[in-house]
Amino acid sequence: MTLQPGFTGSTLDRADHLRNNEEALFGMRSDPAARLLVLKGLDPVAGDDGGIAWRLLDADDRGGELLFLGLDEGAPRFARLDWDGPRGGSMAVLQLLHRLPAEQVALYGGARSLVDWHYRHGFCARCGATTALFRGGWGRRCASCTAEHFPRVDPVVIMLAEHDDRVLLGRQPQFPPRMYSALAGFLEPGESLEEAVSRELHEEAGVKALSVRYLLSQPWPFPSSLMIGCVAPVGSDALTLDTVELQDAIWLSREEVRAVLRGDPGARIMTPPPLAIAHSLLSLWAGG
Amino acid sequence: MTLQPGFTGSTLDRADHLRNNEEALFGMRSDPAARLLVLKGLDPVAGDDGGIAWRLLDADDRGGELLFLGLDEGAPRFARLDWDGPRGGSMAVLQLLHRLPAEQVALYGGARSLVDWHYRHGFCARCGATTALFRGGWGRRCASCTAEHFPRVDPVVIMLAEHDDRVLLGRQPQFPPRMYSALAGFLEPGESLEEAVSRELHEEAGVKALSVRYLLSQPWPFPSSLMIGCVAPVGSDALTLDTVELQDAIWLSREEVRAVLRGDPGARIMTPPPLAIAHSLLSLWAGG
Repeated sequence: MTLQPGFTGSTLDRADHLRNNEEALFGMRSDPAARLLVLKGLDPVAGDDGGIAWRLLDADDRGGELLFLGLDEGAPRFARLDWDGPRGGSMAVLQLLHRLPAEQVALYGGARSLVDWHYRHGFCARCGATTALFRGGWGRRCASCTAEHFPRVDPVVIMLAEHDDRVLLGRQPQFPPRMYSALAGFLEPGESLEEAVSRELHEEAGVKALSVRYLLSQPWPFPSSLMIGCVAPVGSDALTLDTVELQDAIWLSREEVRAVLRGDPGARIMTPPPLAIAHSLLSLWAGG
Repeated sequence: MTLQPGFTGSTLDRADHLRNNEEALFGMRSDPAARLLVLKGLDPVAGDDGGIAWRLLDADDRGGELLFLGLDEGAPRFARLDWDGPRGGSMAVLQLLHRLPAEQVALYGGARSLVDWHYRHGFCARCGATTALFRGGWGRRCASCTAEHFPRVDPVVIMLAEHDDRVLLGRQPQFPPRMYSALAGFLEPGESLEEAVSRELHEEAGVKALSVRYLLSQPWPFPSSLMIGCVAPVGSDALTLDTVELQDAIWLSREEVRAVLRGDPGARIMTPPPLAIAHSLLSLWAGG
């Protein structure tokens, strides 16, 4: 079974070797093949072809703060920071993204995380002075203490506890009605991913992981997570829920998971949409 | 084969539920069983028993900026920030750590990353104002814009390219003489770990991954990485090295890797020490 996790599959060449090449970066701004990602805050705009909109760069863009995203068959792709405009985004973009080819979704997701990181790092966390973009947008440097700061990616573990051929799904209080998902949490300093999975399962559901099996990963650009998907057999199906994190949790059989993924009207619950790794995790588990 | 990756195996209960409980945090400062990690900058100090030194908290500590590390069989463990003292650390601590039990190494590693993160985040990256510790030391909040900041963990992929039953090791210019290691690089926004592995192998060695197999992970507290170890079969052993990153790269057979790990005097190269994930990756590969 092949499965394309959400927000993966970009065909862009990140061309890391050009990021430190000021001359090349300058030249690419004037390349007639160069294109700029159209953003409204952090959200994409639908183009005439129904895909994500890109446009030519104008003189104002060329003097602006440009992030070099990479090369699309040799053609430079940029995003631009606009500190005076809106800097927020919405989750509603998922509605647009669900209709687009994987490579467009992935390219947009990476760009969104990068743009958002800049907007939240205009100042140096070490000394409080202002920072300025460098490395073609893949870092910011402090104007005062010269500290260099790089885009942040936050690893998150997301896992299916497994017992007696059933998996555990939980419901957070803010979820839409009937929605359940895999348990998840941020990995902390000092942990392996296996240790983070074990800790989260214990904290949130009171179950003890016997082992941890990595399945797949994907980026999640709200704002910038690396979702690491695992399955963990546990010793018992008795639950002790952390009721701050979870309103409810249930065990589903393979047949029940398949019914949910099919969108069967008789299914017990709903799950997150295909762009979310929880959906892929469940598909892999139910298929295997 | 069981293998304890470096900096894993802490037996401390992180007791996440207490971090938001100001009353409990306050009370634990006066618990006679509480202990404070002795640090010289970021480095540990050897105690009388040869392990990492801890000490009782005094009145000055109780009024200081304490990080709640967790519970050791119910006894609170803390680290303390000292903004007026040295804030640096050295890699030489590895010499001390190599002689210690895994759980002490892991506990120290997590604490070091957390302390170091605080020292580098005294100011708000969003607005430049000062930040103050909250959540028992597991975050900082801006005094002006109220933005909340959390400890950073940077995912790094580290991988063995595999071809014809041999694996690829590379040598960075700054490595000690004869030292080679697995290729590695930071995962970027918008990538899955499989995509990051493929990109790094292509960028650094010009090889194309046919697939990516996750093997193991570990934290690396210099300053705060999550090392994600993989094996990736590649289509050819022809190399095109990025000579900025790599001075040399070689293919080693299983027998050659085993000789290196044994410390055989006739071995072609040296590898990083057991606390480094490259060592564990090679052990797993050579053993399987």
